[in-house]
Amino acid sequence: MHPWRIQSPPAALQEQLQACLDNKTKPVGSLGELERLALQIGMIQHRLDPTVNAPQAIIFAADHGIASHGVSAFPPAVTAQMVTNFVAGGAAISVLADTLGIGMTVVDVGVNASFPSDLAIHHQKIRPGSRDMLVEPALWEEEADQAIAVGHQTICGLIEATTSNTFILGEMGIGNTSAATLIAALLTNTPLGEVVGKGTGLSASGVQHKLAVLESALERRGVTDDPWQILCRFGGLEIAAMVGAALTAAQEKCLIIVDGFIATAAVAIACALEPHARHYCVFGHQSAEPGHRALLKHLDATPLLSLSLRLGEGTGAALALPLVRSAAAILTRMSSFEAAGVSRS
Amino acid sequence: MHPWRIQSPPAALQEQLQACLDNKTKPVGSLGELERLALQIGMIQHRLDPTVNAPQAIIFAADHGIASHGVSAFPPAVTAQMVTNFVAGGAAISVLADTLGIGMTVVDVGVNASFPSDLAIHHQKIRPGSRDMLVEPALWEEEADQAIAVGHQTICGLIEATTSNTFILGEMGIGNTSAATLIAALLTNTPLGEVVGKGTGLSASGVQHKLAVLESALERRGVTDDPWQILCRFGGLEIAAMVGAALTAAQEKCLIIVDGFIATAAVAIACALEPHARHYCVFGHQSAEPGHRALLKHLDATPLLSLSLRLGEGTGAALALPLVRSAAAILTRMSSFEAAGVSRS
Repeated sequence: MHPWRIQSPPAALQEQLQACLDNKTKPVGSLGELERLALQIGMIQHRLDPTVNAPQAIIFAADHGIASHGVSAFPPAVTAQMVTNFVAGGAAISVLADTLGIGMTVVDVGVNASFPSDLAIHHQKIRPGSRDMLVEPALWEEEADQAIAVGHQTICGLIEATTSNTFILGEMGIGNTSAATLIAALLTNTPLGEVVGKGTGLSASGVQHKLAVLESALERRGVTDDPWQILCRFGGLEIAAMVGAALTAAQEKCLIIVDGFIATAAVAIACALEPHARHYCVFGHQSAEPGHRALLKHLDATPLLSLSLRLGEGTGAALALPLVRSAAAILTRMSSFEAAGVSRS
Repeated sequence: MHPWRIQSPPAALQEQLQACLDNKTKPVGSLGELERLALQIGMIQHRLDPTVNAPQAIIFAADHGIASHGVSAFPPAVTAQMVTNFVAGGAAISVLADTLGIGMTVVDVGVNASFPSDLAIHHQKIRPGSRDMLVEPALWEEEADQAIAVGHQTICGLIEATTSNTFILGEMGIGNTSAATLIAALLTNTPLGEVVGKGTGLSASGVQHKLAVLESALERRGVTDDPWQILCRFGGLEIAAMVGAALTAAQEKCLIIVDGFIATAAVAIACALEPHARHYCVFGHQSAEPGHRALLKHLDATPLLSLSLRLGEGTGAALALPLVRSAAAILTRMSSFEAAGVSRS
């Protein structure tokens, strides 16, 4: 994929888009965040009448070596069980995607289980989970490269198959808040104790244990501020795949709706590698994880929703999709004062 | 309509609903506000598999006598112009309702203009706007009663025509933040200066003028804590119609998605008249108006969205509808741990 060719959206249209929004039959600025979102979508698509085409949620799934150290409230076997549940339609993201008119693709980029070859997922397993970062780097560089390529191919394939211009990045991987916490600490230069959280439901003592494990990982693998090294030492296969998916979506001028903590960690690495990628991102949901807040501040991002979700799977981003659709529709379909014969203030 | 027969949802199902939610394939509580919403909808519909049927947005429109005193950034003629714009499909709520799969009904309960009889609205004008509350009560009691009856009939008619069980209450009325501000001050016992705001876009000096007008109205009509008197002295025809619509929807065990400041003021009066009505309400959007915050605190309510909207028309409630749909779908369609073969924590 190197070099990435990610462009900043041309600034030329910004003034015209703002004038278009200001001329809609409503007080100037009265649709708040929806207007900012409409402006961003218009800039990305370089049109005054942007559309949200065939939005796609992609759930990248992988296991984590660090999960063997008891850093999650759930056993590692749940990653594989949930992949089956996604496809069967019983998981939260399955129900939300169907309810909200979002396509769903599940990608096994590194689950520690064998799936039947006819299971309707993308079978792209690189290895059965990341390595135990207490012993060695979580990903060898070639593994991280391969996972990024999986993310790249997934986006390219979906654009070709569906003409989608809007992607929701989600994930499944027991243990992956540990990886994201290390990424958040290193990218934002924040002490681990300030970014560690309870994940999907650890007790207070569970969080203390998780912190000790993460401190040990950091000591053994070493502190770095290089985003590629952070990804390889502490990341996961699904996180690397999301890095590749985000960079590819940005390169293809698609909107990326980022889910919660883990997806934001991946996107933060993508933006550290290629800063222009940030222009293509909106953030769906404010997670309760303290590390998410640190990453959002680092990215100068305010999520659209704050509903106390702490699930992942792309659920927070899926719930934000109607806002994205609405923002595009406001710009494309609302009348101007002149056309509607409405008086101005 | 008197007496209203509004029941508290039977508590018997609460434990069963919570067990059902806790048994879905996700960490307990990890869908946050969506789970609380699912519980409320299940309680209201008294089912473990609630549904959102044919959701309807109703925009009650009326003019306000107080608008002649320069309390709004827009001229009063805009109320009638926007009614035409709603029907033509060019207004924000028209676009959002269509984008989000929501039916839309516009009710003229007191616009100061004559509409062609074939305009596709409910022609229920009681009089051409509320009275000037600096001179006399905004509504005579029989006018408030008639407006409540319009709200009642609108809900009953829509239930019969569409089998809807979910209603979005919105409004249009230049000057109506003034009415809502007085309602908020009196119902929550808060000084006017703390609840007055810029409405759809007043300048700082405009807000000061509005405050002076409202203080004068309060002095001339008199302070009261009786919700019926508050409605008659300071309300509006669309506000009274929303009171009737909210009470009727609650009586019919329908979910009410309340829009911003004005709709919340109406619902606060409805709840003051009939406290059980509160069980049937969810609040779509946190308005920037300080009076909205006071009313929400009074009602112990937290809105689902906070997007800096300040438009009304039902837009904030419409944007929350996908969350309501999603909450019902979570309860009705997600798999249990047992059914999906997923391990628990």
